[in-house]
Amino acid sequence: MKLTIEQKKEITDQQSQKHETKRVTSPELEKILYEALPVLDHGFVRVVDYMGDDTSIVQSARVSYGKGTKKVSTDEGLIKYLMRHWHSTPFEMCEIKYHVKLPIFIARQWIRHRTANVNEYSARYSILDKEFYIPKKEQLSAQSTINRQGRGDLITGDQADEVLKILKDDATRTYGNYETMLNERFDGTIIDEKKAGLARELARMNLTLNSYTQWYWKTDLLNLLNFLFLRADSHAQYEIRVYAETMLETVKKWVPITHAAFLDYRVGAVHVSAKGKKVIKQMAKGEKVNVENSGLSKREWNELMVSFDFSDKVI
Amino acid sequence: MKLTIEQKKEITDQQSQKHETKRVTSPELEKILYEALPVLDHGFVRVVDYMGDDTSIVQSARVSYGKGTKKVSTDEGLIKYLMRHWHSTPFEMCEIKYHVKLPIFIARQWIRHRTANVNEYSARYSILDKEFYIPKKEQLSAQSTINRQGRGDLITGDQADEVLKILKDDATRTYGNYETMLNERFDGTIIDEKKAGLARELARMNLTLNSYTQWYWKTDLLNLLNFLFLRADSHAQYEIRVYAETMLETVKKWVPITHAAFLDYRVGAVHVSAKGKKVIKQMAKGEKVNVENSGLSKREWNELMVSFDFSDKVI
Amino acid sequence: MKLTIEQKKEITDQQSQKHETKRVTSPELEKILYEALPVLDHGFVRVVDYMGDDTSIVQSARVSYGKGTKKVSTDEGLIKYLMRHWHSTPFEMCEIKYHVKLPIFIARQWIRHRTANVNEYSARYSILDKEFYIPKKEQLSAQSTINRQGRGDLITGDQADEVLKILKDDATRTYGNYETMLNERFDGTIIDEKKAGLARELARMNLTLNSYTQWYWKTDLLNLLNFLFLRADSHAQYEIRVYAETMLETVKKWVPITHAAFLDYRVGAVHVSAKGKKVIKQMAKGEKVNVENSGLSKREWNELMVSFDFSDKVI
Amino acid sequence: MKLTIEQKKEITDQQSQKHETKRVTSPELEKILYEALPVLDHGFVRVVDYMGDDTSIVQSARVSYGKGTKKVSTDEGLIKYLMRHWHSTPFEMCEIKYHVKLPIFIARQWIRHRTANVNEYSARYSILDKEFYIPKKEQLSAQSTINRQGRGDLITGDQADEVLKILKDDATRTYGNYETMLNERFDGTIIDEKKAGLARELARMNLTLNSYTQWYWKTDLLNLLNFLFLRADSHAQYEIRVYAETMLETVKKWVPITHAAFLDYRVGAVHVSAKGKKVIKQMAKGEKVNVENSGLSKREWNELMVSFDFSDKVI
Repeated sequence: MKLTIEQKKEITDQQSQKHETKRVTSPELEKILYEALPVLDHGFVRVVDYMGDDTSIVQSARVSYGKGTKKVSTDEGLIKYLMRHWHSTPFEMCEIKYHVKLPIFIARQWIRHRTANVNEYSARYSILDKEFYIPKKEQLSAQSTINRQGRGDLITGDQADEVLKILKDDATRTYGNYETMLNERFDGTIIDEKKAGLARELARMNLTLNSYTQWYWKTDLLNLLNFLFLRADSHAQYEIRVYAETMLETVKKWVPITHAAFLDYRVGAVHVSAKGKKVIKQMAKGEKVNVENSGLSKREWNELMVSFDFSDKVI
Repeated sequence: MKLTIEQKKEITDQQSQKHETKRVTSPELEKILYEALPVLDHGFVRVVDYMGDDTSIVQSARVSYGKGTKKVSTDEGLIKYLMRHWHSTPFEMCEIKYHVKLPIFIARQWIRHRTANVNEYSARYSILDKEFYIPKKEQLSAQSTINRQGRGDLITGDQADEVLKILKDDATRTYGNYETMLNERFDGTIIDEKKAGLARELARMNLTLNSYTQWYWKTDLLNLLNFLFLRADSHAQYEIRVYAETMLETVKKWVPITHAAFLDYRVGAVHVSAKGKKVIKQMAKGEKVNVENSGLSKREWNELMVSFDFSDKVI
Repeated sequence: MKLTIEQKKEITDQQSQKHETKRVTSPELEKILYEALPVLDHGFVRVVDYMGDDTSIVQSARVSYGKGTKKVSTDEGLIKYLMRHWHSTPFEMCEIKYHVKLPIFIARQWIRHRTANVNEYSARYSILDKEFYIPKKEQLSAQSTINRQGRGDLITGDQADEVLKILKDDATRTYGNYETMLNERFDGTIIDEKKAGLARELARMNLTLNSYTQWYWKTDLLNLLNFLFLRADSHAQYEIRVYAETMLETVKKWVPITHAAFLDYRVGAVHVSAKGKKVIKQMAKGEKVNVENSGLSKREWNELMVSFDFSDKVI
Repeated sequence: MKLTIEQKKEITDQQSQKHETKRVTSPELEKILYEALPVLDHGFVRVVDYMGDDTSIVQSARVSYGKGTKKVSTDEGLIKYLMRHWHSTPFEMCEIKYHVKLPIFIARQWIRHRTANVNEYSARYSILDKEFYIPKKEQLSAQSTINRQGRGDLITGDQADEVLKILKDDATRTYGNYETMLNERFDGTIIDEKKAGLARELARMNLTLNSYTQWYWKTDLLNLLNFLFLRADSHAQYEIRVYAETMLETVKKWVPITHAAFLDYRVGAVHVSAKGKKVIKQMAKGEKVNVENSGLSKREWNELMVSFDFSDKVI
């Protein structure tokens, strides 16, 4: 990730602000506020604003439960209780805003999370940056032959070189032709003073999906956790997972108690179906149970075994 | 509005907080942060947190339009432009959280605005306060005979006294019976140690709709303005309008430029139908136009005349 | 539940409609379309429209996965797969609309589910029906002493009679006074021709929370299942649970495959935390584990034991 | 637009369905149900399901207003009243589902409308079709020199030919390289049996933004009208406007009364600011008013003149 001189100055200016406020603050998050945390080759994640901290969750829960919350003595106990029992609305009381730079094909996955506010750089108005995501060699996996949407073995050697060459050449050429059609370079230089440039809203269609875009993305803590649950998961595409992992670290700084509860009750948790529950009960009682007498399909059986790290997978 | 000693202490504690932050702050809003602004006889509105200010709107708009925004030179010009052209997403980038105390029949109207986060005091867990909304005499209007949902002339004299007596007596008696069923007073005193109290989730059904409840209500600036547009309007029920008016004052302190644009382009604006537009055009040209040759229904004609303060209403 | 002659005629008219359509239909749901299914003493649930069936879920999933879905051979297999792996968007492709009559204190819980479309009977325009929810004796539970929001032992004998008398008397009196203030009976009779009636938007505040209201409520299948998961659960308040249970039966008729998958993977399922998973693994291996060496709090331990129907609860 | 034999068969099968239903139907919409209405060079819009018609809006409004609606005698009068007074919730009671094929850069604009349900073809699972949007010559406009996001004069002659050649060549080459990386042709043929193909979720990043994708898109009538208001507008980008115009025709068949009210009160309507209202009032009274004494900025003045088709624009 290389920031322009302008961007670096903007960040330094923002970070040198000092205001007094009566609002709650999150000291650890303040330390990295506005900082561009690098992701992929040209992307970044920046926390640019936030509202509330762990105590805001507690505060609004205490409004709901009134004197009823006195029984749960500590803030930590209450947050864990709320997380465990899916009492979700208090977590909506914290809000965070990120500035993110990311490849377009990842932006298309990300935007499917609808409960967020978004302002994206518009290629109808302005010329996109000359930056493309080119994977590292260790990311060049083949299509999985087992899982329809996963990645399989690594592609190596000449074939890997060929893939990287294609991605670079095609992005470079289509971007060059984008400039030609616009009759303007990415830095604002006019190419041919006698010509008009094609409308930006049209020219952009020639760009490849690994071109970088950027946006402000604002959401509440509950919806952020839902996003991270899906996107920081091992089944998520690598290129969005690295964003989610970086954001999960910012959550840890922002609301450490909630972060710990999230890891215990969501990220590391297991969801067991009614049929699966019967199997677990039999196993706990020391009874013999296998895929045939379990009532589960082979696929369900294997998923259950994997989720508890049991070794009894069948083929 | 009478606050308990506990509540007063909580507010004083919150207001004496001083934290340093790198986030933008809104100095005028900070001054009234946490303060209980009185509404109706026992209600209040408190701003308890916020995120962003006028510059946050500008900042996210500039991400969208990139270099394209340079033409609009000032922040004020840009905010007015956004408001005028319904470019709504930048206004979603500011967030505010209120603590509100309000009668249940008003809470039922309010909650219909779905794009907000809410934590309400739960009468399943706790006993509701012994407070009811009793209108002032100058609010005791008769049902309008023209408008199906409006208020008409004032009810006065003995009839007004009777109405107020009914409201007070019924609220007092049903609350007293609520306590009887709970076997517990509002202050926690047990009435009869030998009896069990009815479940709170059941007993509450005996309360009248003018009982006060309270909640934390958090929303973004765009949805707040939509709420205020409808609820600070002269057609809104008086009892919700006074909340909206109080909140509109907090918006003025928070985002003064946006507030001014909102008054000009929304609150004071007129929406003219395609047929109405023809009429206005004829009038501006000095042509004679009346309800018969206008193509408008009588009702549409009158609404048009009223919206431009013209005197040509028909009956 | 007693329907008026008008209502009965409307239902009969609607049910006698026969239209030809190219849309998919759900034959079992058609059989009960428009029928008022009784709930509580005066409430009902009616399915008044729907869109899609089990095959609509499959159809939209196949668009997403393209040729990739061919591996899962059957519709049932695909729906189970989607439900198991929280691939939720295909379930949003079915829509249903209910007409519901329900007590106001239940309506207030219900409306907290925001992702739905609602049109409620407005007491600003019209006079509410003279109907109140009065619980049956077997519902008169005391406040739970263990669980802050649950019900405990039944209240019986004189105390039960007293509760029922209070509820009936207070509802009747406040309704009578509502009519007095309106200067109009529920059937439209004017009480005193010489008087004006108080505005309806004001008079309604005198009603108790067990008064019945009604609304049209429309939502997609995914959000309906989320609603039912919470509200048909044994921890939900009885008075909303009976609505949810009735609606769950309509889901069974509408989308039987989805209904079965919902029971297996949601309703009957267990969610186990990261720490709880360790305990289960130890138990399955035959290792001794108890609350002390489990890493769980006493409360967590008990919740885990209960969720698997194990008997090792601690006090 | 060329449909595959498979697609044609699917449409014919769907159209030959005949089911009996007690639900309301929209006979004109039934006639074109499932039909692929062509848009752009390879795109289409198909109505694949719907719920409700004009009477459904009336039905739910009558629940809200109860006996209060009797004054408005006709369905048409009530729908016009609701539209004019922004009583929006009854319009949420109708739902429609489209199957749309569209270029990716248009899909990215479209998806910004968040209140809809979407299932998109996934290029993580399946190979995208070999189809790209190439504009017609009459769409090759230059970037507007007045409006930052509009189109200006037509680009013609050699420059136009060059633009079209670039778009075709780059799309073809990048698609070819997509196949090379996948080691698989769009029709499923394996290119080199000895090689593994790159994961689909990676290879797709080489495609250009004018590649076609497809999705199921479901929304309620209110949100559809909001979408159409913005996207069928003359300021919308041509390539999304043609979709909106096609969909507006389906709305006309589905809910003709609502469609007419929408044209009168939204599409053809004018929104006048508080300051603009003063100007109009002066003009209607025959007073002289110009940009200098109007209190409007030059830009606001011109927008006002244009909106009423007055000729007094200033430069």
